[in-house]
Amino acid sequence: MGKFLTTREENYSQWYNELVLKADLAENSAVRGCMVIKPYGYAIWEKMRDALDAMFKDTGHVNAYFPLFIPKSFFSKEADHVEGFAKECAVVTHYRLRNKADGKGIEVDPDAKLEEELIVRPTSETIIWNTYKNWIQSYRDLPILINQWANVVRWEMRTRLFLRTAEFLWQEGHTAHATQQEAIDETVQMINVYAEFAEKFMAMPVIKGHKTENERFAGALDTYTIEAMMQDGKALQSGTSHFLGQNFAKAFDVKFTSKEGNLEYVWASSWGVSTRLIGALIMAHSDDNGLVLPPKLAPHQVVIVPIYKGNDQYDLMREAGNKLKTELKNAGISVLFDDRDTHKPGWKFAEYELKGFPIRLALGARDLENGTIELARRDTLEKKTYPMDNIVRVVKDLLDEIQNNIYQKALNFRNQKTYHADTWEEFVDIIENKGGFVYAHWDGTNETEDLIKEKTKATIRCIPVDNPIEDGKCILSGKPSKQRVLFARAY
Amino acid sequence: MGKFLTTREENYSQWYNELVLKADLAENSAVRGCMVIKPYGYAIWEKMRDALDAMFKDTGHVNAYFPLFIPKSFFSKEADHVEGFAKECAVVTHYRLRNKADGKGIEVDPDAKLEEELIVRPTSETIIWNTYKNWIQSYRDLPILINQWANVVRWEMRTRLFLRTAEFLWQEGHTAHATQQEAIDETVQMINVYAEFAEKFMAMPVIKGHKTENERFAGALDTYTIEAMMQDGKALQSGTSHFLGQNFAKAFDVKFTSKEGNLEYVWASSWGVSTRLIGALIMAHSDDNGLVLPPKLAPHQVVIVPIYKGNDQYDLMREAGNKLKTELKNAGISVLFDDRDTHKPGWKFAEYELKGFPIRLALGARDLENGTIELARRDTLEKKTYPMDNIVRVVKDLLDEIQNNIYQKALNFRNQKTYHADTWEEFVDIIENKGGFVYAHWDGTNETEDLIKEKTKATIRCIPVDNPIEDGKCILSGKPSKQRVLFARAY
Repeated sequence: MGKFLTTREENYSQWYNELVLKADLAENSAVRGCMVIKPYGYAIWEKMRDALDAMFKDTGHVNAYFPLFIPKSFFSKEADHVEGFAKECAVVTHYRLRNKADGKGIEVDPDAKLEEELIVRPTSETIIWNTYKNWIQSYRDLPILINQWANVVRWEMRTRLFLRTAEFLWQEGHTAHATQQEAIDETVQMINVYAEFAEKFMAMPVIKGHKTENERFAGALDTYTIEAMMQDGKALQSGTSHFLGQNFAKAFDVKFTSKEGNLEYVWASSWGVSTRLIGALIMAHSDDNGLVLPPKLAPHQVVIVPIYKGNDQYDLMREAGNKLKTELKNAGISVLFDDRDTHKPGWKFAEYELKGFPIRLALGARDLENGTIELARRDTLEKKTYPMDNIVRVVKDLLDEIQNNIYQKALNFRNQKTYHADTWEEFVDIIENKGGFVYAHWDGTNETEDLIKEKTKATIRCIPVDNPIEDGKCILSGKPSKQRVLFARAY
Repeated sequence: MGKFLTTREENYSQWYNELVLKADLAENSAVRGCMVIKPYGYAIWEKMRDALDAMFKDTGHVNAYFPLFIPKSFFSKEADHVEGFAKECAVVTHYRLRNKADGKGIEVDPDAKLEEELIVRPTSETIIWNTYKNWIQSYRDLPILINQWANVVRWEMRTRLFLRTAEFLWQEGHTAHATQQEAIDETVQMINVYAEFAEKFMAMPVIKGHKTENERFAGALDTYTIEAMMQDGKALQSGTSHFLGQNFAKAFDVKFTSKEGNLEYVWASSWGVSTRLIGALIMAHSDDNGLVLPPKLAPHQVVIVPIYKGNDQYDLMREAGNKLKTELKNAGISVLFDDRDTHKPGWKFAEYELKGFPIRLALGARDLENGTIELARRDTLEKKTYPMDNIVRVVKDLLDEIQNNIYQKALNFRNQKTYHADTWEEFVDIIENKGGFVYAHWDGTNETEDLIKEKTKATIRCIPVDNPIEDGKCILSGKPSKQRVLFARAY
């Protein structure tokens, strides 16, 4: 199979692009920067969405839906937000087309110009806070704990499937609270939910921390992030949760009467993850043979491939395969029985390896006689023959083991590629020659951060949560510092 | 409660609008024609989506996602489609905003004009068939059975919450087949899925049939519809399934090599239902006291309201309420225990009646002593006291009974309001004075259909499937006819 894909070693970026296409996850569309998410890619997104949605609901959130379009003027209301979001975006200016005078095709009807242009949402804080204004009068109306699953558009110039696309799918939580502390607690709770999802479902270890002022969400007082390491040592920001203070409440004049009878501005958080997570999932675990999917997010956890000669054996295999499929399904395992007679077993083996099915069961004629079955693990590529009568238990346990193994492998990899640098030379050497995460001291200024980025392309990924206090000197400026921050080159 | 809502009798349309707002289902947004779907309304949509999604998957479909934007030129490729869809729609012309020279606000950057305008999808046949072109070479690539859950935009001038909005949520299935028969079978299968969903989940009887040529989907050779009767006797088109022939394959040049080695155009179907179904659900069943929701789509099937005096009783009630909640949940029943001490029982009773919770359990101090509980049904408003020890079984059976009862009530209502007309006078009298469905003969011409609409505002809702052959004369033209068709005024 390796021959079908450029190896990670040869060209990591090309390996990624080829894998996304060959595994049928997504492709570019006729619209610049917009992708088509193909059924197999979308099935992974559905798994992610369902798991996250359950976690959101368990923490008291409900879903709602707000308009795709936002009046242009809304963006001007929050000073930082307009700088961050109202620039590269899709602008609707007209609401009608008409036939061309020459009868050839259609054109925009100049009479159907909107009085105020509408922006296709790049994020929904403004339209949502404009709505919350009417929902909130008293402390009894708080908190509001709403999430939205939606598409958003940011007019990116350089796009890559899943990682950076003009349109993408995401969820955005928008909460409103009576007190600052409650809003902060919510912000922290949600970054914890994201971290738990990344580690337990995606099998992807993450580092939680605060973004620096430079990298903060436009309009936030504090942005929490989870940062994961990809197999090329680069960081990928995988989810963010923002404490918005009273910025949007002030911009949209959202006040409430407190228990004490005072009129106060409402406190806010927002938080989101997107289809970018599919890119993270691919880059964190997959290998030169194709996708490696953690069992908890694999559209199918098991595939059964029959190996047979002639119609008689085929009939036997179909019977045995369907029986096994039912047993596995009844045990809560998602399973595909590929009994197509149009493709050879070898072709199927390659296909399911490429697509990252965690377990492959090969059912042969001799197996059937012996009461055995051959099992192949995608994560280690090991093959082993098991007695048939206990196979459901074996598969169930192995799925847990694979989930853990993939996580542990990613964690070990990250640990190996995580460094401490105490001098500029050391720092540059790691970033340039080794790649990975570097903990280093920083003087806390935007200027130094910018300079480091300019010189090395490394950015401060986060100031880790519960960072130990440690006296040191900034690796670039030499000025005093109280803690190390996490540097890396990033996607 | 009646006093909170205009009654259906007084003003059906106003009753509907008030109910949507007061039951917290949806509201108008700051963007003309776009609605905010509030959490309670969205929870109903989630129930609908999950049920439909399972039915789609059971019939072999998978989900995918295609771009929000469609290049303008795509619409011109299918002659009928451009007439039907590329007129009233949102047009993206620019991709950047900039700060105004005077520093006050932002404006569209004239340098960021798109070479070709993008249309916000009103439906996705064109972008999807442009994509399928690359996916289909051989009969082995067929069928393609894909569904998409998405938002779409049609620039409607007169909008009503759920029933007709500029942006709405829907699903759209787009399938590709090797033969005409397969595509027709798929079209029929999906209208049957919609009918089953309407009847089993929405408890809403529907009539299946073909649309006339006038009312067909733009680009279809045949459109199947399901038509439901609302409580004002008007019809509501609730779902459609289209046989598209080879129209889109020809427009986008999608050919395949058949088993016999010939190069042929691909056959197509498309089918969809939308958030309009929430409007149908409301108008089919609700009463002057508020929503009446069928148990299969109610966000919560049961609410438990404690009735108590003082803290001691409150503690007892909380214990008993939580225990009951757990027992009901374990039986697969979705239940809300409203133990808030900020609202009185009377307020809660009114609230859950308005919101259409199918069953309300009131837990009082004397009930607790006697081992009984009071149960109120939303559909009949009956109250009855039951022994506590068997309450889970009672609730479970009653939920089934309520589901059936709501369906039966709607069916009886429709039967009462369904007429046969054999003369023009009879026809006009029914349409003008009685309202409802009318089976009548029609001569099969577009002209007569248009004239009837002009004179009475009644349209042909469908030519029912398996319509009996019956010789007759067109009610308007008197020309011969072989079957009756279904007329009604409609939403």
